[in-house]
Amino acid sequence: MEEQNNNLKPLFHPESIAIVGVPRGHSRFGGASYLGKLLECKYPGRLYPINPKADEIQGVKAYPSLASVPEVPDLVIVCLPAAAVLSVLEECARIGARHIHILTSGFKELRTAEGRALEERVGAFSKQAGLYVVGPNCMGPYRPASHLTAWGAIPGLPGPVGVISQSGTITQRITEYLCSLGLGIAKAVSMGNATVLGAMEYLEFMARDEEIRTIGMYLESVPDPRAFMHLAREVNKKKPLVIWKGGESEVGASTAVSHTGGMAGASHLWEAFFRQSGVARVRSMDEWADTIMSLALLPAPKGKGVFLIGGGGGQSVVNGDACIRQGLDVPALSGASMEKLLEIMPSVGSIPGNPLDNWRTYEDADHLAEVMEMGYEDPCVDMIMTDRIIPRSSFHSGDEPDPTPAVIEFLKKNGQRKPTVFTVDFAGGDSDLAVRGASLVARLCSEGIPAFPTHERAARALVQLYRYHEHRR
Amino acid sequence: MEEQNNNLKPLFHPESIAIVGVPRGHSRFGGASYLGKLLECKYPGRLYPINPKADEIQGVKAYPSLASVPEVPDLVIVCLPAAAVLSVLEECARIGARHIHILTSGFKELRTAEGRALEERVGAFSKQAGLYVVGPNCMGPYRPASHLTAWGAIPGLPGPVGVISQSGTITQRITEYLCSLGLGIAKAVSMGNATVLGAMEYLEFMARDEEIRTIGMYLESVPDPRAFMHLAREVNKKKPLVIWKGGESEVGASTAVSHTGGMAGASHLWEAFFRQSGVARVRSMDEWADTIMSLALLPAPKGKGVFLIGGGGGQSVVNGDACIRQGLDVPALSGASMEKLLEIMPSVGSIPGNPLDNWRTYEDADHLAEVMEMGYEDPCVDMIMTDRIIPRSSFHSGDEPDPTPAVIEFLKKNGQRKPTVFTVDFAGGDSDLAVRGASLVARLCSEGIPAFPTHERAARALVQLYRYHEHRR
Repeated sequence: MEEQNNNLKPLFHPESIAIVGVPRGHSRFGGASYLGKLLECKYPGRLYPINPKADEIQGVKAYPSLASVPEVPDLVIVCLPAAAVLSVLEECARIGARHIHILTSGFKELRTAEGRALEERVGAFSKQAGLYVVGPNCMGPYRPASHLTAWGAIPGLPGPVGVISQSGTITQRITEYLCSLGLGIAKAVSMGNATVLGAMEYLEFMARDEEIRTIGMYLESVPDPRAFMHLAREVNKKKPLVIWKGGESEVGASTAVSHTGGMAGASHLWEAFFRQSGVARVRSMDEWADTIMSLALLPAPKGKGVFLIGGGGGQSVVNGDACIRQGLDVPALSGASMEKLLEIMPSVGSIPGNPLDNWRTYEDADHLAEVMEMGYEDPCVDMIMTDRIIPRSSFHSGDEPDPTPAVIEFLKKNGQRKPTVFTVDFAGGDSDLAVRGASLVARLCSEGIPAFPTHERAARALVQLYRYHEHRR
Repeated sequence: MEEQNNNLKPLFHPESIAIVGVPRGHSRFGGASYLGKLLECKYPGRLYPINPKADEIQGVKAYPSLASVPEVPDLVIVCLPAAAVLSVLEECARIGARHIHILTSGFKELRTAEGRALEERVGAFSKQAGLYVVGPNCMGPYRPASHLTAWGAIPGLPGPVGVISQSGTITQRITEYLCSLGLGIAKAVSMGNATVLGAMEYLEFMARDEEIRTIGMYLESVPDPRAFMHLAREVNKKKPLVIWKGGESEVGASTAVSHTGGMAGASHLWEAFFRQSGVARVRSMDEWADTIMSLALLPAPKGKGVFLIGGGGGQSVVNGDACIRQGLDVPALSGASMEKLLEIMPSVGSIPGNPLDNWRTYEDADHLAEVMEMGYEDPCVDMIMTDRIIPRSSFHSGDEPDPTPAVIEFLKKNGQRKPTVFTVDFAGGDSDLAVRGASLVARLCSEGIPAFPTHERAARALVQLYRYHEHRR
């Protein structure tokens, strides 16, 4: 196991990369794209584009073959057409390069006898030669701290999250999404057809990787579901695992066959696995991001009773409904808290209780801190969900100074006492509201305080948090 | 019925408004706020602030009493404390003012014997005197075309939607939300405690109002659920009705009591009502807006089979899953369509079928139009859902010209052939992505093409559309 751990490391920490199959000139696809993006991302290691007909590509010295490169590259990215891939692997084996990412598609996902045969030969050769192969048919490894972010195309943000995915686009989106919220990525891998390295190998590796605190997986199929489920259950005891299982519908499952060539089926096995293992199951990009964020940032709750801080009578009603529908409790506050509220709250236009309808919490950071402190002290409260409003004309917002910096200061000292999250509603087509909402969400999340665009999403994430810790008890 | 219809009209089309209880100076609340906001919204009618101690308020001539106003105002807004409300109503009756909005709170929602008694007297007097009273404890009527938008605080956008709501904040938010998408509001009313005029009266009125095409309601309780349900069922046969029933959980229901003083309960009655009536039930602000928009803009679908146009293998899998989970079908395309696709689609990196994985549809408006035309002609397809991508670095987007204008032109000619919607994913904390996404969504919606931030939400709205029309068949 320890050996396996070290063996995958060069995929994510390469000090040198050879890219086999880089045409001259620029392109958004293939080897030219990978070279261009690695340069753009300021990859600090040594780059070796391979092209027998070029001396230099995009300003980088090119080499006619892998064998002519002056060192054994830590990572070889293969971008040649499918028919040429096997000979590249043979050359890798000859020179001693063992970590290989095959970008090329045209294997078993074609569902042709030829495609399948080619893939089998790639798999058999790699295993026999001891090659660690990512793919084929995928975007490969990603690690912002290594500036290995060719498909993220921007340097990205290092952080505590590991991502293992059977879809390139979905991996690109989740890494972009989490980075935009200030929750960085330790390592991500888009594994494609997973001929050699698959979900289990990456999961074992990331489970032991100390820079990873929470692991998100997007899976359509695994070759041996029972073995995978056993491993996932074990890993989840140590690190939270959040799995998005694609292909749960028949349509999705049959689409998955043409996507990665795997059979998505076995839905009853997966249902039972999620029910029994305590592994978080999610069903959309938003839920995936929300759940990963909550599990990465929040402390364990003692129970599932949430204290809802906000304003507006109707909002209190529907926010209570939303939390209950997602599976939280909205308990009555303790007598001491109710007394405290009657003492400190404005008497007009507000309603003490849980949900709390108290407009002053939107504008007065000290008052909000007092209310939250009361929630931290109240034994009936396990978690706190506080609503924020983007000040605007339609809510008759005043010109009070922005309470956000003071709220963040309070939370940096107190936010780990009980799980504490925020909601910021900025839905719709108003660009100004959108930019202010997205910025506020990003600002809170960047400070380690999860923020969500709706109460539904906040509640759903807290339920996942509660279930994870409940299962460990 | 006809009389009733005409009788409510002055609430929304007032040519003169008296505001009783306007302090000197500005304020974000009460009479000063209503006067200030009506001025800000350029209300074109005559305004009469009432204050016995002022000659002029905010630049407008003030009057010592209702009786001293030089005409009978079409609408009287009462902003005095609860104890003074009854005498204002008496004065209204004396001068012949019949349309009154009571902003003031402090009635039955207090749950005190005093509050209840005061409210009963207000109700009894109003009914005996033939007064049409909105409220008390509410934001009152709103009509952008009349510039009667004091609580929307901006002129707003006239349009085909009617809103009836038991929550001021929720009404403010839905009107802002729909206007930001270019789907305007005909009339909205926040009805508060509904002592005189309630859900039934407003619904009857809006059902016959020709400027209203779709009605959205937010309700916590109605005094006579069976009578309301009967009326709603009848109205829904003529105009789509979209109801958000707050207080479905015990917590929500008990919160509703302190909000508007009504008992939210009777959940089994409501369950049966929604199941049998064909009235659309929604459970959040987003679902409410999405459903209203779809019912207001889209033609009736023949069935529930959706054609998913997009790109990315994993995306196809999860988008298919999402549509199935929401209750749509994702049918196989006809043989003719499949032949056509093989002929026109790029052969590499794309997968023909439904879901369609075809990156060219993102960049090439003519190609997308050809694919959509195929969908309109295909008898297996009832609706079309097309994904849009905001071009950006993490998806290696190129410098192609923006296809949106050409796509909109095509849809303006063809969009009513089958229900056609778009998805635009811009979630996360990236301000630039947020502003570009919100703008694109607003641009599409403004052209009458519903656009949604996720496939889940688009599918949920299409299911509501399908159910509504299915029930009418």
